Amino acid sequence: MKAEIIAIGTELLLGHIVNTNTAYLGRKLAEVGIDVYYHTTVGDNPSRLAEAVTRALGRSDIVVTTGGLGPTVDDITAEAITKFNGRKLILRNKVGTAPGLIIEHRDKVIACLPGPPRELEHMFEKDVIPYLKKKYKFQAVIKSRTIKTTGLAESQVNKIVKDLLKIPPPTTVGIYVKHGEVDLRIMSKAKDEAKTKKAISKIERIIKKRLKNYIFGYDDETLEGTVAKILTKRRLTIATAESCTGGILSDRLTNISGSSKYFICGVIAYSNESKTNMLGVSENSIKKHGAVSAEVALEMVKGIKHFACVDIGIAITGIAGPTGATKTKPIGMVYVALVTDRKRVVREFRFKGSRKEIKFQSSQVALDMIRKLCGRS
Amino acid sequence: MKAEIIAIGTELLLGHIVNTNTAYLGRKLAEVGIDVYYHTTVGDNPSRLAEAVTRALGRSDIVVTTGGLGPTVDDITAEAITKFNGRKLILRNKVGTAPGLIIEHRDKVIACLPGPPRELEHMFEKDVIPYLKKKYKFQAVIKSRTIKTTGLAESQVNKIVKDLLKIPPPTTVGIYVKHGEVDLRIMSKAKDEAKTKKAISKIERIIKKRLKNYIFGYDDETLEGTVAKILTKRRLTIATAESCTGGILSDRLTNISGSSKYFICGVIAYSNESKTNMLGVSENSIKKHGAVSAEVALEMVKGIKHFACVDIGIAITGIAGPTGATKTKPIGMVYVALVTDRKRVVREFRFKGSRKEIKFQSSQVALDMIRKLCGRS
Repeated sequence: MKAEIIAIGTELLLGHIVNTNTAYLGRKLAEVGIDVYYHTTVGDNPSRLAEAVTRALGRSDIVVTTGGLGPTVDDITAEAITKFNGRKLILRNKVGTAPGLIIEHRDKVIACLPGPPRELEHMFEKDVIPYLKKKYKFQAVIKSRTIKTTGLAESQVNKIVKDLLKIPPPTTVGIYVKHGEVDLRIMSKAKDEAKTKKAISKIERIIKKRLKNYIFGYDDETLEGTVAKILTKRRLTIATAESCTGGILSDRLTNISGSSKYFICGVIAYSNESKTNMLGVSENSIKKHGAVSAEVALEMVKGIKHFACVDIGIAITGIAGPTGATKTKPIGMVYVALVTDRKRVVREFRFKGSRKEIKFQSSQVALDMIRKLCGRS
Repeated sequence: MKAEIIAIGTELLLGHIVNTNTAYLGRKLAEVGIDVYYHTTVGDNPSRLAEAVTRALGRSDIVVTTGGLGPTVDDITAEAITKFNGRKLILRNKVGTAPGLIIEHRDKVIACLPGPPRELEHMFEKDVIPYLKKKYKFQAVIKSRTIKTTGLAESQVNKIVKDLLKIPPPTTVGIYVKHGEVDLRIMSKAKDEAKTKKAISKIERIIKKRLKNYIFGYDDETLEGTVAKILTKRRLTIATAESCTGGILSDRLTNISGSSKYFICGVIAYSNESKTNMLGVSENSIKKHGAVSAEVALEMVKGIKHFACVDIGIAITGIAGPTGATKTKPIGMVYVALVTDRKRVVREFRFKGSRKEIKFQSSQVALDMIRKLCGRS
């Protein structure tokens, strides 16, 4: 079973919006074992669209179009597909206005879906997938499992799993770099779900053995979610003292529903005076070691832990750039300190990238220190 | 001059990564007046790629491919394009490893670029665009101007500029909704830059007259950037007291380089106790009105302004959900309070969406209150 996706919209061609629909459709079609060999994007032009649909029908069984439906002037799908005859099914749009359409053209299927992602996704999952499942007997199932790591660079992970990245289908391993993490995705295609699961577990066990505690989660899990689980399960409370990160660590800690169980408070001590007033950092330490130093990080974390009466205090101070570097302290130099009743740790990091990237990476290592240092007794 | 973009990668077809490269290339090609009628995505399959390139060459003058280059097993561009003869130019990759390639095939051009966005963008701007400019005399220039608004829903902006959205080419207006803002983009195609500029200014003046102070910036400007400019120019200092937003307001305020000039400190008073201890909110007010109330927001903001000795204090308290709603206080109810030496304002909002969306929207209205209330004396 082969499918092809056609996205419609001049704004896509001009790059005014990024095409996320085809990625979504590609993922969902793969999940039910349908191969997708082509994505095409055409503008709001009926004749080029008709041509694209004709070509797609020549080489695929299922054609899914997205966009170009609805009441406005630039909606041209209806005009382009009139020449494809066959039984027509109207798909009601429960979350928007433009209805969708399925056309059974000879032995092929054309599904025309709206462009807004929420409407497309709703219609595709509620109507199109059940329709396709009923019409075709799917011959294969594709399952995937993502193993998420942080703390290693892509090249390091690559080295550790080099052999696995080369194993041939039907079970493969891919490496993906994302904002502060390196993920490994195992994909397996087989006749039934049990077979894919077995093939995936086998490789998952090998990866786990090799990457050990660098693994922080699986599939849709996030680092802040993993930290939230640890803190909630162990009934630990936390408070933050941030300088260069400006609040992003606290923001991430509170992105998880139920974070009020563990997150008590945070302080963003941006100026030197606020480090002294809010956290009790001594003026002398700032003068002697500088605001970006292991000493000040430790005084900050001591201050917040004491002040907030929490189990875990965590503090970050650093230089996010692009200005503020000195001879001995380059942009991207960051100190993270963590204290509990029993532990007291401070680490120095050197990050690269933009101001926002350095802020994010600092919050990432801070979360990872919480995970590693507070995950076990 | 017509161009076509071909993205290469099975991970794109499977939707494991979203294709941002084609949007980038579409935008950049449009800027120099090159029309793009098709984007195609194919997997890591040399024969399907060769077929796609052949088809593209049949209908376009320039074919740009992205991905499928480099030293790994799944890099297949080189294999697929051997049959296209002509003068070859190697493009050095200054930010990565895989070099790019330009092939002059008969009167057409094939440019093969790497997949990682940073490498692609660097090579496209430094090498490909200058090459194309030299080789072809561009017949048209396309310029665009984006006018960014916040505080109105899409439907409201739509109503206000309905007539403008219908004006026919060569100068058009589009409406785009983004995270907390509604943008209007004016596009103009003409023989030279002066003509496009004139056409754009004419419509820009009309839009400015209609949307007035809802406009916070243009093109690449951000709301936090606009706020930063105001605070820096007027030499005002600010401190934040956040509850439900968990630090995102401070994070956004400190995303701007030079923010230490205006941002002094922030407090994330998540628990009721921390609202009392850190900001001096009276226990009685919390008991009587609840932590999510205009009264508590005002006490929070009074506390932070006084404590931090700043020109502007801003406080947010609300229910980010998905839990925590009460009969009278639904999820998405948020209070934002702002005080200066002369002003004292508190506003109630009702937001919809996920926890993260409610946090973001709250920070958005808070930034917009700073912009509107502190932008003028």
